[in-house]
Amino acid sequence: MSSSSSSSDEQPTTRRIRHLTLHLNPPPPQPPPSTINLQPCSSSSSRARKPNVNVTTLSSYLRGNNRDIQEKVFDYFNNVRPDLQTPIEILKDDYRELCMRQLMGVVNEAGVKPFQYVSDDPMKYFAIAEAVGSVDMSLGIKMGVQYSLWGGSVINLGTKKHRDKYFEGINNLEYLGCFAMTELHHGSNVQGIQTIATFDPLTDEFVITTPNDGAIKWWIGNAAVHGKFATVFAKLMLPTHDSKVVSDMGVHAFIVPIRDLKTHQTLPGVEINDCGHKVGLNGVDNGALRFRDVRIPRDNLLNRFGDVSRDGTYTSPLPTINKRFAATLGELVGGRVGLAYTSVGVLKIAATIAIRYSLIRQQFGPPKQPEISILDYQSQQHKLMPMLASTYAFHFATVNLIKKYAEMKKTHDEQLVADVHALSAGLKSYVTSYTAKSLSVCREACGGHGYAAVNRFGSLRNDHDIFQTFEGDNTVLLQQVAGDLLKQYQEKFRGGTFAVTWNYLRESMNTYLSQPNPVTSRWEGEDHLRDPKFQLDAFRYRTSRLLQSAAVRLRKHSKTLGSFGAWNRCLNHLLTLAESHIETVILENFIEAIKSCPDANSRAALKLVCDLYALNRIWNDIGTYRNVDYVAPNKAKAIHKLADYLSFQVKDIAKELVDAFDLPDHVIRAPIGRQSPGEAYAEYTQYAGF
Amino acid sequence: MSSSSSSSDEQPTTRRIRHLTLHLNPPPPQPPPSTINLQPCSSSSSRARKPNVNVTTLSSYLRGNNRDIQEKVFDYFNNVRPDLQTPIEILKDDYRELCMRQLMGVVNEAGVKPFQYVSDDPMKYFAIAEAVGSVDMSLGIKMGVQYSLWGGSVINLGTKKHRDKYFEGINNLEYLGCFAMTELHHGSNVQGIQTIATFDPLTDEFVITTPNDGAIKWWIGNAAVHGKFATVFAKLMLPTHDSKVVSDMGVHAFIVPIRDLKTHQTLPGVEINDCGHKVGLNGVDNGALRFRDVRIPRDNLLNRFGDVSRDGTYTSPLPTINKRFAATLGELVGGRVGLAYTSVGVLKIAATIAIRYSLIRQQFGPPKQPEISILDYQSQQHKLMPMLASTYAFHFATVNLIKKYAEMKKTHDEQLVADVHALSAGLKSYVTSYTAKSLSVCREACGGHGYAAVNRFGSLRNDHDIFQTFEGDNTVLLQQVAGDLLKQYQEKFRGGTFAVTWNYLRESMNTYLSQPNPVTSRWEGEDHLRDPKFQLDAFRYRTSRLLQSAAVRLRKHSKTLGSFGAWNRCLNHLLTLAESHIETVILENFIEAIKSCPDANSRAALKLVCDLYALNRIWNDIGTYRNVDYVAPNKAKAIHKLADYLSFQVKDIAKELVDAFDLPDHVIRAPIGRQSPGEAYAEYTQYAGF
Repeated sequence: MSSSSSSSDEQPTTRRIRHLTLHLNPPPPQPPPSTINLQPCSSSSSRARKPNVNVTTLSSYLRGNNRDIQEKVFDYFNNVRPDLQTPIEILKDDYRELCMRQLMGVVNEAGVKPFQYVSDDPMKYFAIAEAVGSVDMSLGIKMGVQYSLWGGSVINLGTKKHRDKYFEGINNLEYLGCFAMTELHHGSNVQGIQTIATFDPLTDEFVITTPNDGAIKWWIGNAAVHGKFATVFAKLMLPTHDSKVVSDMGVHAFIVPIRDLKTHQTLPGVEINDCGHKVGLNGVDNGALRFRDVRIPRDNLLNRFGDVSRDGTYTSPLPTINKRFAATLGELVGGRVGLAYTSVGVLKIAATIAIRYSLIRQQFGPPKQPEISILDYQSQQHKLMPMLASTYAFHFATVNLIKKYAEMKKTHDEQLVADVHALSAGLKSYVTSYTAKSLSVCREACGGHGYAAVNRFGSLRNDHDIFQTFEGDNTVLLQQVAGDLLKQYQEKFRGGTFAVTWNYLRESMNTYLSQPNPVTSRWEGEDHLRDPKFQLDAFRYRTSRLLQSAAVRLRKHSKTLGSFGAWNRCLNHLLTLAESHIETVILENFIEAIKSCPDANSRAALKLVCDLYALNRIWNDIGTYRNVDYVAPNKAKAIHKLADYLSFQVKDIAKELVDAFDLPDHVIRAPIGRQSPGEAYAEYTQYAGF
Repeated sequence: MSSSSSSSDEQPTTRRIRHLTLHLNPPPPQPPPSTINLQPCSSSSSRARKPNVNVTTLSSYLRGNNRDIQEKVFDYFNNVRPDLQTPIEILKDDYRELCMRQLMGVVNEAGVKPFQYVSDDPMKYFAIAEAVGSVDMSLGIKMGVQYSLWGGSVINLGTKKHRDKYFEGINNLEYLGCFAMTELHHGSNVQGIQTIATFDPLTDEFVITTPNDGAIKWWIGNAAVHGKFATVFAKLMLPTHDSKVVSDMGVHAFIVPIRDLKTHQTLPGVEINDCGHKVGLNGVDNGALRFRDVRIPRDNLLNRFGDVSRDGTYTSPLPTINKRFAATLGELVGGRVGLAYTSVGVLKIAATIAIRYSLIRQQFGPPKQPEISILDYQSQQHKLMPMLASTYAFHFATVNLIKKYAEMKKTHDEQLVADVHALSAGLKSYVTSYTAKSLSVCREACGGHGYAAVNRFGSLRNDHDIFQTFEGDNTVLLQQVAGDLLKQYQEKFRGGTFAVTWNYLRESMNTYLSQPNPVTSRWEGEDHLRDPKFQLDAFRYRTSRLLQSAAVRLRKHSKTLGSFGAWNRCLNHLLTLAESHIETVILENFIEAIKSCPDANSRAALKLVCDLYALNRIWNDIGTYRNVDYVAPNKAKAIHKLADYLSFQVKDIAKELVDAFDLPDHVIRAPIGRQSPGEAYAEYTQYAGF
């Protein structure tokens, strides 16, 4: 912060203001003839204590146990086969072939074989996914389609016979496959899909049929070019004993061969078309599939949750269609977990580029002094520092999620299953929406040079964009979170226990029933505002209040509108509730992560970052807090002021904080994001040919 | 809204909730055992009066006088030369050639010659820009570079000799040219550019020099491939009489030939490199220019605001460097005006596609009933209806801006010049930031099918993205608005008058000095909330308050931090002030446009839309209003509730409102955005090859 005084009392106009408003000849800010005394913004320089961040120490706390396998991926593309890196310009068809070669290279040349980890060591699988995604997100998604979706459906929805038959082919990429769930007319509403699988007892086969154009399988990855098989989701139709009527047993999954294993010809009855160019991820060959009475052996039913015997008798370990459907979808939750985690990886890359560039980019400055870094501007801090804090917050929350997921895959503990389901829905939705917005902010914060394709914001944004939609539309997923909270809420009042993640609600619901404390609502000291107890209380209070009021409103409206209408009438409220809850969980995870950090300097830095996350979120929703007098006006102002000040403080360690992400230049790959500030412009001009 | 009741009292779970939370087995929303009586959301169905919108009548009120020339452009690409339309996949170099052929076609085949209108009929020029931009934004920008930037600089910064020499060549595209202002190290800070133009009295020439890599002209449109000339901005250096010292006369503009008119060879001393791929607009050939002592005749100085005589004497009609610089930049304001206007055009296209698709897309529904349109969901209305309202609001505001600009070009009225400058800075910034965000919202609101490249959100977003940066970075432009407001504020207290657009501040500042009225702060009736007087008062109050408090804070901080430091310390506050002001101006324009509308039904529809715009903005900033008790808690809730309800009402006429934009299918070009709902899916499956 400059403390230079103006050169003359009569004309204190600074060069800055002149620059900005020059052609309007603005006068200097002058004292207005008002006597109203507004809360001033106090000079905070005396409080500035820059934490002493050791990048290596902080980095090793952040880094997981699977860095070695990530390094293997990075090394392969950086040193062994740099020729396989995706160029900036490539036609769609070439891109798809390159992406296939990249995947072959990782698996068969670099020897990174992800499939075994899908169920045995999910954290290692997600680490690989993050690494290949940072090489090229198309590669990350193509890998996910092959191993997590196609492979995962065979392993998790099938039984031993399927594993024995398909595991090795999936593993070594001979059996490239697709996951054919979404149809042209049905995405979110999976139970509404219309593809039919009718059992024919005469031939002991299922007949797969697309009954109308709306039921064409759409957006199916690996389908347009490379896939040999598809896991097709269809309504199982069984003949009944007394007539020719068939009965609908609900959605099941079937392995359907779509191309000849040797000739790669499309098989009879299967029609495949290309979904064409997408906004991003054009290395992935998404296709559309129509089935005209395609016959498959009875064994191709993935029969873990429901089976059909030779005579057409249906058996299942689960009693109802809905429970079977829930179990089927439940096995696919790993995809959401992976997306939430990978999205944080994308956010780390973007934040690193934007912050490093903002440190070297200089523009304007105090009179007769050098220009200053654009990160020295309050506006730029406002754009990027809460984003950096959120990146750290999301890091800990998603690492916690993948740990829980790995634990769940081992123990199958019922409460953990429910917890991971709701948490993955909420984090996937919240994190990917935030990252999507942030990618645009980063581009804009880097001005014209952020618009150069080589600096990556464009491809990161275009590729990441669909994270908000696939594996569950974000708006729909948030409703699942809200639904789960309402269920927990109801069980509390029935005397049940809250699930692990939202245990806090039990306490705070009681707090909520009393009015806000008129004394603490006025406390505005920095120690109070930076106290995790105050922050957590504020987050939890909001969630509890939204939950209680949502329940009241739902009840009231359901009398006149029915439950569906009532849900819709309260929908924005319910989405706010879900977001509030997820923000709370993230804060809790962050506070826990700080407590567990063994290094004092790292703790101090993380505490600063965490405080910024917390106060930024409270300020963003200050209307809610003010409306119930949870914070008094003076406290609201103090929160705003402190949030700005924390952004200023975090700015002072921003370089160290992004360096601690430990993303080397050959992973970041943007000239303006070079770790060494002296190299950025030079590499950039060199790229243009100078 | 469905009013179906649940099928059983014991199990009132709706299919909707089951779908959403199925695998978690959520219970139905149940009455909580709480006695707290929260303000309920009343059933609004009795108030629903759907305005009877006549699309043709509304459309003719919206449409300008220049529809004929727009039709000429559309017809050319739709009927005469459909082969010139940009395909979805095209390599950069081919794209640039195609874009050049498109421009040649419009000018020389379709006979649409924009250059004459740049100064003679700016509204017609902007209409052409909007039309070609909707064909392909690269074409729109290439046209803008040629006629508004390169051509505009020759006409507006030069004198008759330049017009005589260059007009026809620019007009017929023989003299393709560039506008070389931005350098690698200097974008926003134009006065910081380092390129030098030194007068050599021996040869009567200027010598253009790039002194270091940071001074390389960067992002120069038309430079990489097609340009013959460039208007180069450089610091004019004149030899002094007494020594070999040269004196810096500030930034001036010079015509520099860069390629041979016949051979197209790059001229000696000029180095041109390609800036490469961009996030979007890859039809425009942006290049980088380095000058090694390039000599140009003295006549090539664009000498309207400053001239050099044969003996090296400097003359100018303006007294200081700053006034000359301001006058120079002032002539370039048309670019900003055009961008604000064109950005609304982009927003119209995106909103049309997203809303039409949301009407035909059905997903989930009440038990045993058909699925409902996704636009029937409150969440989707929340995403799209305030956006539609904003599109209308921006339409009227930017039409008003181009009218003022056209008037200014005629009258050169000093107050109008100042007004257009600040208004164009504010609207360009506010509108382009809003449109950029909305394009992402539209994509996400259309789910997977929004991610198909053919449905346009990707290219619209990538091409429009840089609107936030070029012709003035949005964050910098908002500061110009804030600076201007502070100037006006100061002049008020000196007894001066407020400029036209912010006349309202004179009145509202006085209102501000009193405290909020404790009676009206509680009024929550719909008639009151929809009264333009309440809405305008609320907007103006906020601006006045932000302005007064900014002035107080700037004064306070400047004592310790200097004016530059104080400005930076208050920067977020100043940006909020500027946005608040622009929102106010937009609301005023909207209210005026409604008053002027001759058709009662159209007026009713526009009033509904305007109320949504106003209440949405007030609710977005409800913390500010609550914090000073401008609205009481009950009123805040009523505003929230009414804003949701207005979204619901606007939804009922959303189809008519987008149809009234009068953008035919061959302009919209997205299959999912077809005007006839029955055609959307069919065209989309056909596109994929079915």
